[in-house]
Amino acid sequence: MAENILIIGGVAAGPKAACRLQRLRPEARITIVDQDNLISYGGCGIPYYVSGDVSDEKELRSTSFHAVRDPLFFENAKGVRVLTRTRATAIDRQGKRVSVTNLDTGLSEELAYDKLVLCTGSSPNRVPIPGSDLPGVFVIGDMHQAIAIKELIAKGKVSRTAVIGGGPIGIEMAESFGDLWGLDTTIIELMPQVLPRIVDPIFAGMLAHHLAGHGIRIFTDEKVQAIRQDGESYLVVTDRREVPADLVVMAVGVRPRSELAREAGLLVGPLGGIVVNNRMQTSDPHIYAAGDCVETNHLVSGKRAQAPFGSLANRQGRVVADNLAGLPSIFPGVVNSFIMKAFEVSIGATGLSLEVAKAEGFDADRVITAQSDRAHFFPTQAIIPLEMVFDRRTRRVLGVQGFGPMGDAVLARLDAAAALIAKGATVEDFINLEMAYAPPFATALDALNTTANVAENSLAGRLRTVAIEEFMAWMDKPGTHPDWLALDIRHPNEAKAFCQAFGERWLAIPYIEVRTRQGEIPYDRTLIIICDAGTRSYEIQCLLDGRGRRDSLVLAGGFNLVRRLPASWWPK
Amino acid sequence: MAENILIIGGVAAGPKAACRLQRLRPEARITIVDQDNLISYGGCGIPYYVSGDVSDEKELRSTSFHAVRDPLFFENAKGVRVLTRTRATAIDRQGKRVSVTNLDTGLSEELAYDKLVLCTGSSPNRVPIPGSDLPGVFVIGDMHQAIAIKELIAKGKVSRTAVIGGGPIGIEMAESFGDLWGLDTTIIELMPQVLPRIVDPIFAGMLAHHLAGHGIRIFTDEKVQAIRQDGESYLVVTDRREVPADLVVMAVGVRPRSELAREAGLLVGPLGGIVVNNRMQTSDPHIYAAGDCVETNHLVSGKRAQAPFGSLANRQGRVVADNLAGLPSIFPGVVNSFIMKAFEVSIGATGLSLEVAKAEGFDADRVITAQSDRAHFFPTQAIIPLEMVFDRRTRRVLGVQGFGPMGDAVLARLDAAAALIAKGATVEDFINLEMAYAPPFATALDALNTTANVAENSLAGRLRTVAIEEFMAWMDKPGTHPDWLALDIRHPNEAKAFCQAFGERWLAIPYIEVRTRQGEIPYDRTLIIICDAGTRSYEIQCLLDGRGRRDSLVLAGGFNLVRRLPASWWPK
Repeated sequence: MAENILIIGGVAAGPKAACRLQRLRPEARITIVDQDNLISYGGCGIPYYVSGDVSDEKELRSTSFHAVRDPLFFENAKGVRVLTRTRATAIDRQGKRVSVTNLDTGLSEELAYDKLVLCTGSSPNRVPIPGSDLPGVFVIGDMHQAIAIKELIAKGKVSRTAVIGGGPIGIEMAESFGDLWGLDTTIIELMPQVLPRIVDPIFAGMLAHHLAGHGIRIFTDEKVQAIRQDGESYLVVTDRREVPADLVVMAVGVRPRSELAREAGLLVGPLGGIVVNNRMQTSDPHIYAAGDCVETNHLVSGKRAQAPFGSLANRQGRVVADNLAGLPSIFPGVVNSFIMKAFEVSIGATGLSLEVAKAEGFDADRVITAQSDRAHFFPTQAIIPLEMVFDRRTRRVLGVQGFGPMGDAVLARLDAAAALIAKGATVEDFINLEMAYAPPFATALDALNTTANVAENSLAGRLRTVAIEEFMAWMDKPGTHPDWLALDIRHPNEAKAFCQAFGERWLAIPYIEVRTRQGEIPYDRTLIIICDAGTRSYEIQCLLDGRGRRDSLVLAGGFNLVRRLPASWWPK
Repeated sequence: MAENILIIGGVAAGPKAACRLQRLRPEARITIVDQDNLISYGGCGIPYYVSGDVSDEKELRSTSFHAVRDPLFFENAKGVRVLTRTRATAIDRQGKRVSVTNLDTGLSEELAYDKLVLCTGSSPNRVPIPGSDLPGVFVIGDMHQAIAIKELIAKGKVSRTAVIGGGPIGIEMAESFGDLWGLDTTIIELMPQVLPRIVDPIFAGMLAHHLAGHGIRIFTDEKVQAIRQDGESYLVVTDRREVPADLVVMAVGVRPRSELAREAGLLVGPLGGIVVNNRMQTSDPHIYAAGDCVETNHLVSGKRAQAPFGSLANRQGRVVADNLAGLPSIFPGVVNSFIMKAFEVSIGATGLSLEVAKAEGFDADRVITAQSDRAHFFPTQAIIPLEMVFDRRTRRVLGVQGFGPMGDAVLARLDAAAALIAKGATVEDFINLEMAYAPPFATALDALNTTANVAENSLAGRLRTVAIEEFMAWMDKPGTHPDWLALDIRHPNEAKAFCQAFGERWLAIPYIEVRTRQGEIPYDRTLIIICDAGTRSYEIQCLLDGRGRRDSLVLAGGFNLVRRLPASWWPK
């Protein structure tokens, strides 16, 4: 007899599992239930809908061939039954039945299953503060909130917005407010940087600088304490100020919707996600789960991880279908690849940031480069800063971060890096990675290869660096330890202003002259070698080392990075 | 005592080895000799110099910080001595000396070495036909030829060009003639397609179609027999026609410059390249070699391979330096990643094409997809056809090809693929590859993941396809075997013209209606299911299979591919 497959949740993992299983086992009877009336939408597209890039919410629920994915579509095209506005309230594992309630009629019934699939997704967090439930305070959880936000703006009711949370969704929402609607927009982030735990401070700094250049106000290290009604508007009260806003978005992460699973006695992990094996099977062999509601395995840290990405939900949904059909495919885990657009830049990461890698107990270190994305003589050439995080003992690459102009240059490096990182690759594997080369696409030694070369130089002790954030602190208070002297090997025109500002602490000798003029470099202080990308500084460090002078440090990433950082980083 | 390192060749691998070694061993005495006066140039940039994208040839010889890499630069900045216009004529391995001749003075001398590095590069082939050495017939071997070509054009002496050879360099040169100079340009290729052995016929066809759309005339399967003077111009005589041209470029591959090594008794391989181990050491332990003059190892075929890429020369140069310095790093081999720009498109490949994989004895098969590079609702979305070549027995992915608009979308998929292919990855590894996702950069299931999924469906026997080139032949002669019937599941407007042209052989039932209208599909002929990308057709195939009808074939890649192919492929 044909199996009865019941799927709870109709956004990403659920429909994917249903449709794939229908193809593998056309005889299966597959039902999706979802409490919403809108299903199978690209939730990641919400910011582009709010901004107006996507004009109609139906586009987020459509196929590439412009069919709206509603219950009728699933019935006719996919052979899958979908019950919308139908909430699953309890699972009877013994009797293999799920209680559901129709939210329109209020009527309840029980649906039998042979196999059950939980794709219950995640809920956006709300900061537990007074006023968090005021009508103008939104979370980005489903299409309805997106539609409501866009309607409010379109009606001209909003001129100032506040976004609580400087993670990816907060920033994408801020962009959508600032870019197309021209709204006055403020981001408030609890941690000292935007994209906390995703990228390291320098990359967060470059992003913040770019956002500020587009009029987005950013307050980091600032705690929201309350939201107060203020006439028709609101005041977001932090530990430092009051931010007026006509609309407030809370984008402070999501938590797995695992209540139903937990109440049914299924194993739920410490992060709140349903525990599954790599075939996406829960602790009950008749029940599978996929998408935002599960915990998965981080392939670098080895820990359980939350990875609420639409891309992973789709891949997991496919694995569920395979296993329900008797094909033992697996979902091995995640490296948490991430990329986002913010106005004219792209920023992304894969694997672990330095901060997280250290917290995980790795003997972690990093290098930062600022190389060209394509041949320097090619017209569209741009600098793409990259960071490589690695373990000094095992030489394993733990993570890569990238920042660059909008386009796919950063994406290319991250995707290649993710492929290797998932396989446990070392710095040497990255040195040997064969990136496709032609001048319109890459440099002869690709920026990612170069970054690995720099990591190798660092591991070998040949390259010794000072981090920009550290050196900027030293610049701010030149008397502090260590007593430093800058050797600026850039073009004299570039060095000039610094020589004037820092006097005898800033020595300018052009790169090409250092070899012959090294006698001019005083020996009494820690030498900070400064260029645009760090590459030439490394050469000079090798030169000086060879002459027995081993007290120099290279400013990692050089002024290509410095000039991408906010004014607030600069010495006063 | 400091070692004496002599390097023959100063374009890519040589300077890289010299500079890296100088940093690792500042005490080493390093000399580069080169017979040219111009050194250390980006030869891959020549087409962009000829086109005018790069205005001055010095830009190809400059660093990213605009210093010209001439002998003085190497002396001052790098501490490396360079002797230009100095030809190495013989190696005395016993005495560890190289005879060199100064091409300006005619004086000869012997240079002693402790270690010798051969970076003698490659020579462009000339087709051995009458007239191949006429003054207006050029090869793209060094900067001088590029400068001469550009001067001729700039003087207005050229209005028609002929390019012999439809490989990457031939096409790039054709673009440079056609694009910025607006010259009448013809490509003549001996093989039945452009980019032979690099991409398979469909990808070559899409490229040819695009080139034709930019006025480039392409004659494939055509043999050049002679070049004849015709007044001030030339006639390129093929086995089919005479092509008039004021300037002729021969771009028919390169051969390693290994004469010096061969005469010194070093091992030279069957492809004509110097044999080296993976530390780039020749059969004489005191002599290393790198760049276009060596043979390397193909990581998929396992065979010796020629890989004349500037990117690899740089990586190999670094390995030479490491080993000379006592650091045992290796160059493991190549997957022959390749990408190029042609007007508004990019095309590339990594690993083996289907044709080559079959010739190498693999149980090779392929799938072709035509998916979006980013979310279908994102404004810059475009289709990027991908081909995945795999071994049916081992499930190993042998190669990936891509085609798309100019930009880095194809690059991203190729770089990720190359990382995995070099590691021997299977179709399952590609299914599990974590591509970074956000709507402006990718689809939730990335096109590369989807292609792997399609390969898995093919391997499992669920997806059965007909290749476009095959079906087009069937369309051309509808009476031929097999007796086919098209089931066109696209929008009726798209199907209409075909229904009119093919009558009862072309049945249009929209995708969404097939499930309910399948009774209308006659049972008497082989059913070819047709949509835009192949995805929906596969769904219908599964549906029909489930009802016991197993004689259908999916048109692989669908009309997204068909409409990118030249008119000559279409039925008459």
